[in-house]
Amino acid sequence: MSELSRASGVSVATIKFYRREGLLPPGVAVSATRARYDESHVRRLRMVRALVEVARLPLSVVRDVVTAIEDHSGMHEVLGTAHTALSRPALSRPGLSRPGEAPTTRAVQQVDGLVRRQRWRVHAGSPSRAALARALDAYDSLGRSMPVDRLDVYAEAAHAVAAADVAGVPEDSREEAVEYAVVGTVLSEPILLALRRLAHEDVSARRFRTTRRPRD
Amino acid sequence: MSELSRASGVSVATIKFYRREGLLPPGVAVSATRARYDESHVRRLRMVRALVEVARLPLSVVRDVVTAIEDHSGMHEVLGTAHTALSRPALSRPGLSRPGEAPTTRAVQQVDGLVRRQRWRVHAGSPSRAALARALDAYDSLGRSMPVDRLDVYAEAAHAVAAADVAGVPEDSREEAVEYAVVGTVLSEPILLALRRLAHEDVSARRFRTTRRPRD
Repeated sequence: MSELSRASGVSVATIKFYRREGLLPPGVAVSATRARYDESHVRRLRMVRALVEVARLPLSVVRDVVTAIEDHSGMHEVLGTAHTALSRPALSRPGLSRPGEAPTTRAVQQVDGLVRRQRWRVHAGSPSRAALARALDAYDSLGRSMPVDRLDVYAEAAHAVAAADVAGVPEDSREEAVEYAVVGTVLSEPILLALRRLAHEDVSARRFRTTRRPRD
Repeated sequence: MSELSRASGVSVATIKFYRREGLLPPGVAVSATRARYDESHVRRLRMVRALVEVARLPLSVVRDVVTAIEDHSGMHEVLGTAHTALSRPALSRPGLSRPGEAPTTRAVQQVDGLVRRQRWRVHAGSPSRAALARALDAYDSLGRSMPVDRLDVYAEAAHAVAAADVAGVPEDSREEAVEYAVVGTVLSEPILLALRRLAHEDVSARRFRTTRRPRD
């Protein structure tokens, strides 16, 4: 186990904790005090740690992902479970959306229309649909409404980003794929938001700096 | 003042508070107990309230925006001040970026390279540049590195979003423009992140569902 700790960078105490929580399968016992662990344990440990420490998912949710992997689900199903897990915390920023509340019919219809127009293959019950509907409700709650053409621009931009993301997913192991997808999604969100703000500066300079001079 | 409260939807107590904090100019006194307020006060109040309640900016930062408006700065400068104000809280989510820390030279060079390749007109000292560099550092801290071609895909997607955003900015008053830009940016971030996750589901279905069947 101390070798496993060295290979994975996870402390022995944490490895024992993950074992007790059922997040790591046992090694093959080779004596009363020693068990053999292999590369699959190292990959699993790295994935679990990334979900806990980087994505800050609760253990119960990490267990859902582990269960999907151990059920021998296909790559799409395992990634879907991971993304479902992820839909919860990241969108519940204070004041912006309320994950417990059901979205309004109007917002659900906006999402349905978008999915139809974009011909996206997404589950009717996907939690990202509900998260999007709630985000649209929060936007509308200030008396504005997202114009359909802007929502389509957003959707196409988001799809270009998602295509680049998924193209990079490693196919060799589902653990590596999950770690890559979840950590990549979480860590790249601040990159995307910062890029948008930097791009605002560029677009604003092009639109306003040439046509309107400060009155000085 | 009670009419101003009705017209703006902001309580009299809050209006008095904003007055004391210098965020709202005085009305024109018409008697010992009455002052005249006009549409410009209503617009200012709506903007201040949106910056405080929706964007959750500290009063000191809201004051910077008000100062930029009262200095008769041009639209680009006023929007720039608003976006600078915004760069602080939204990117300081726990564990993801540390606004206090200086970005590494490597990350700064990544941003410089991106701005050059994309030919973006952005200030050398723009806080969004530093925010982006810190987000890249956080991404790299897990032993991965954002590939240049993916960063360019992200940048182009972010620019398409920003162009749609800025096209909608009203030009009639700088207060309305600031309110629109700041509230729109903050409230649409969860929309963009939810869209990306929904798009992940579509791209993943196209890539993995047809080539790999679950083993059942």
